[in-house]
Amino acid sequence: MDIRNVVVAGGGVLGSQIAFQSAYKGCNVKVWLRSEGSIDRAKPKFERLKGIYLNTLEAMKTNPAAYCRGLAPKDATPEQLDALKAQVEAAYEGLTLTTSYEEAAADADLVIECIAEDPKQKVAFYTELAKHLPERTIVVTNSSTMLPSAFAQYTGRPEKYLALHFANEIWRNNTAEVMGHAGTDPAAYDAVVAFAEQIGMIPLKLHKEQPGYILNSMLVPFLSAAEALLANEVADVETIDRTWQLATGAPIGPFRILDVVGLTTAYNIGMLDPRAADPATVQGKVAAMLKRYIDEGKTGVNAGEGFYKYR
Amino acid sequence: MDIRNVVVAGGGVLGSQIAFQSAYKGCNVKVWLRSEGSIDRAKPKFERLKGIYLNTLEAMKTNPAAYCRGLAPKDATPEQLDALKAQVEAAYEGLTLTTSYEEAAADADLVIECIAEDPKQKVAFYTELAKHLPERTIVVTNSSTMLPSAFAQYTGRPEKYLALHFANEIWRNNTAEVMGHAGTDPAAYDAVVAFAEQIGMIPLKLHKEQPGYILNSMLVPFLSAAEALLANEVADVETIDRTWQLATGAPIGPFRILDVVGLTTAYNIGMLDPRAADPATVQGKVAAMLKRYIDEGKTGVNAGEGFYKYR
Repeated sequence: MDIRNVVVAGGGVLGSQIAFQSAYKGCNVKVWLRSEGSIDRAKPKFERLKGIYLNTLEAMKTNPAAYCRGLAPKDATPEQLDALKAQVEAAYEGLTLTTSYEEAAADADLVIECIAEDPKQKVAFYTELAKHLPERTIVVTNSSTMLPSAFAQYTGRPEKYLALHFANEIWRNNTAEVMGHAGTDPAAYDAVVAFAEQIGMIPLKLHKEQPGYILNSMLVPFLSAAEALLANEVADVETIDRTWQLATGAPIGPFRILDVVGLTTAYNIGMLDPRAADPATVQGKVAAMLKRYIDEGKTGVNAGEGFYKYR
Repeated sequence: MDIRNVVVAGGGVLGSQIAFQSAYKGCNVKVWLRSEGSIDRAKPKFERLKGIYLNTLEAMKTNPAAYCRGLAPKDATPEQLDALKAQVEAAYEGLTLTTSYEEAAADADLVIECIAEDPKQKVAFYTELAKHLPERTIVVTNSSTMLPSAFAQYTGRPEKYLALHFANEIWRNNTAEVMGHAGTDPAAYDAVVAFAEQIGMIPLKLHKEQPGYILNSMLVPFLSAAEALLANEVADVETIDRTWQLATGAPIGPFRILDVVGLTTAYNIGMLDPRAADPATVQGKVAAMLKRYIDEGKTGVNAGEGFYKYR
């Protein structure tokens, strides 16, 4: 199954990155957006991505540290990098933005759903989309928190529906977790794995549904344990990070990871646990601690300060 | 408080390493052992450590990858490394091995307890030791699994008793977690922190008692999450490790760490959870999976095979 015509639904942080990367790697990409307002908000994101891609490819000519796995082979020559810069321009020019289901769905090989993490919105989107899609089209969700089995019935093609979950800064962090539900056809699964490779991703295969996929299934308990040590005043941020780095050789410890993830996200994940409502529990102490940081505006790297200062 | 006269109780893997490292860094070291048989078993360990220290220092003259943080400053010259090799010989010659409490205790500034992880044996040891120790002596435990508050009352000096927990291959993995109980005198705590630095360790300070200290408090839930993904057949060993490495930049993933830790240790830790007895639970599935590997002799790096092959 050859995937050339790709629809990305949603122009948020990840949606815009996935659309741009797919176009950069040669796909015909249409971006479906809810409204003209969404189109206006998405346009500067693509402008910004074009700049990042061009600057990164230029930097890769001379600076090995600038290398991004999703953009080029490690040994690309300056001439090859110039050719890739031309692809960036072509990708940017070739993007089609539309609010029309008909226009988006016609001729789509693959739809990548990147709309809000709101079940109602997702159900409404899939239900309307299904009316317009060719039978052959595969549909994937980039949802971080929901399982494909929850939506398969609304897509009109449960056997061609699965999850393809990207990481932020897709051109650099080029992993894609591929996860079907019990009714996903292996042929559709394999086609999505091949598509991930085609757009420069490293596919990470899950054999069954797993909330949190592979990465968050490990990252969340690890980060929660670090948060608990701090909230219980067992040790300070620097000591906990240093312990992890010295013992495992990791480049950064849990609190630098949390600063990248963002403390608001960490707080929201923590609040999913009902025990977080009780201030006497570890979960409650962690929530209260994160809330103090958030209330002070220390939400992580993007804010310039989290557990560490970045400005 | 200047610590020069050190007693290490126990000649096992860690006891022998701690004794040798302390002697290498200039302390007068007596090793207390339970019996003449224990002395015979400890001697080849010190012989082996002498060889490792000498070979490592020699290799550090030419091979940056051989560098071990616990042995020398990063920029040591070949002449300085030769001088350190002489210290290794002196350390080896200077070690005193004894089965006598009196001989061990007389004039001790610090006793480092590294005997078996058996509460009864520890209580018996502390109770007898207390009869012979000078009042000033500080006592620490290297226990991985027990808390100092459980034994403080038997030492005859609860305020001068705390935990100093080393990592295996102390000359390379030179961290030492320092953990008091509620009644530990801050002066004794600070003296132990200073001692850790004196013998080339990086002290990692805990402000209160914490089962598992800092490292295992994070490592155990992280490794358990990885084990659960495998036992639930969500993904394979290589995919799970690769996901962790790609996402966090870590040099190795959870299953390579488990191979170093040893699957028997992982199994024993898992079995501490009562849910592991029920084969229907995740904990039970993890235990059954680890037992299959162990039964096949695949216990980790030391056996030549665990989740990966090493020969």
